[in-house]
Amino acid sequence: MQLPSRVKLVDVGPRDGLQNEKQPVPAPVKIELVHRLQRAGLREIEVTSFVSPKWVPQMADAAEVMAGIERRAGVRYSVLTPNLKGFEAALTTRPDEVVVFGAASEAFSQRNINCSIAESIERFAPVVEAARRHGIKVRAALSCAVGCPYEGEIAPERVAQVARQMKDIGVQHLGVADTIGVGTPRKVQRALEAALRHFPLDEVSGHFHDTYGQALANTLAALELGVWQFDASVAGLGGCPYAKGATGNVATEDVVFMLHGLDIETGIDLEALVDAGASISAHLQRPPNSRAATAILNKRQ
Amino acid sequence: MQLPSRVKLVDVGPRDGLQNEKQPVPAPVKIELVHRLQRAGLREIEVTSFVSPKWVPQMADAAEVMAGIERRAGVRYSVLTPNLKGFEAALTTRPDEVVVFGAASEAFSQRNINCSIAESIERFAPVVEAARRHGIKVRAALSCAVGCPYEGEIAPERVAQVARQMKDIGVQHLGVADTIGVGTPRKVQRALEAALRHFPLDEVSGHFHDTYGQALANTLAALELGVWQFDASVAGLGGCPYAKGATGNVATEDVVFMLHGLDIETGIDLEALVDAGASISAHLQRPPNSRAATAILNKRQ
Repeated sequence: MQLPSRVKLVDVGPRDGLQNEKQPVPAPVKIELVHRLQRAGLREIEVTSFVSPKWVPQMADAAEVMAGIERRAGVRYSVLTPNLKGFEAALTTRPDEVVVFGAASEAFSQRNINCSIAESIERFAPVVEAARRHGIKVRAALSCAVGCPYEGEIAPERVAQVARQMKDIGVQHLGVADTIGVGTPRKVQRALEAALRHFPLDEVSGHFHDTYGQALANTLAALELGVWQFDASVAGLGGCPYAKGATGNVATEDVVFMLHGLDIETGIDLEALVDAGASISAHLQRPPNSRAATAILNKRQ
Repeated sequence: MQLPSRVKLVDVGPRDGLQNEKQPVPAPVKIELVHRLQRAGLREIEVTSFVSPKWVPQMADAAEVMAGIERRAGVRYSVLTPNLKGFEAALTTRPDEVVVFGAASEAFSQRNINCSIAESIERFAPVVEAARRHGIKVRAALSCAVGCPYEGEIAPERVAQVARQMKDIGVQHLGVADTIGVGTPRKVQRALEAALRHFPLDEVSGHFHDTYGQALANTLAALELGVWQFDASVAGLGGCPYAKGATGNVATEDVVFMLHGLDIETGIDLEALVDAGASISAHLQRPPNSRAATAILNKRQ
């Protein structure tokens, strides 16, 4: 089976990863992480989130972080904007892309963003409209697209339904997220296929958590559908609050190791990426949560 | 793509796993582990190794462990027998299968078993002959079938060559092992295809290490070739001495989670398997080295 010849990875470590840290990470450390990631060859970085600091104090420095980045040509900087207020705050920091965060599960939507799926779509619509007016691309993250901590398995029809609603309000790209990492290859393919009913192949990406160790197998299954864009988090930063002690985002290092082994071009220098992960992990006083990074760091000793 | 509808997993934890422990594990603990694994539904268990206790003190209790197991109908008990002396010692313990341990890499063969590949085949030949005379099946483990810590990548032609030599001396089953875990899906498929030139599909199995996090993706790739037998190690027991601190054998729990998610029958009760892994891990005073086990144990709390 023919796999894509190149893959774009979006490192979500600075946002999705560090948002889940109990101890706030100082803005200069976040900025340094973004700099290291772009030096390692990342072409898109999810930098921060413009949310209420009351709800997410870890992202209170969103504007400061965005302002502190020395931007590189060819690198895209995306930020989360859950509502119009967040979008307006983000706008002044010139993001290349904004992300709205929805869910395929009604219960998860209620508990995570305090509204129904339908209400979330209504809330996103003016964000999408404003973003498009300013020529900024909008990506929607569709969380719990395979399974939900409250509802269990999510039917592909639900994914298709929400995908269509996202498309209808003008969202340009859909990220299909296995938020709690319960997906396995065929289930992930069915969720992606549901998204592909409403979005073209170039506008669907995969976001897999490694909670049950399935993320790379799921990535391979997605590649076999032709999907060529994935989120990943350097050093496996981040976690899932619903699975204490368990891992969250798949480590970018592990994904890159697989892709390069498959002769798929990423533009990423794995050794420099491992350095970026080791550096932020040292700040957090723990080893990188990445098997490839662990093995590579061990070999260096 | 059609995947196999059922998979047989061989748990190698008691042998390949515990052999790598610095502290020797008492025989009753090993026997309890075997009992727990068979209660969890494992149909084949690699129990121990009949090697010189001078070289591998962890396996000095091989006969005691084999004698202590309450055997279950339908479960196969395999043991490593590196030479005729080991085979003769093993014979009195009535193994269902004996394993000879070869390599696709010349340098690894020299350093790991102190002889050339050709010499190892000569050494295995009388073991195979004796085993077949006693009606005992012989499996050959072909280590470093994808990469070698000394030689780097191993060409599929080398795998095919040694596979043929193994076949010629009467070996019935070939285990294709990615001993240092550097394999990625296409490379693993090429190694398996090389083995399949000389062994039928029903007599080739995969043995993948998760050192770089690739084992489940490689398992999926193997399933896509129709391979339906795999080694795995409960709680990820074992390690690779060439990658300090890194993980070794893929955790049986992680493999079972993927297979069940793919609707592939294994006969294994995942919860009971997690219990088996938690029990031996408690003895070893560390958490199970399995993402699925970690997530499942967290959920139970």
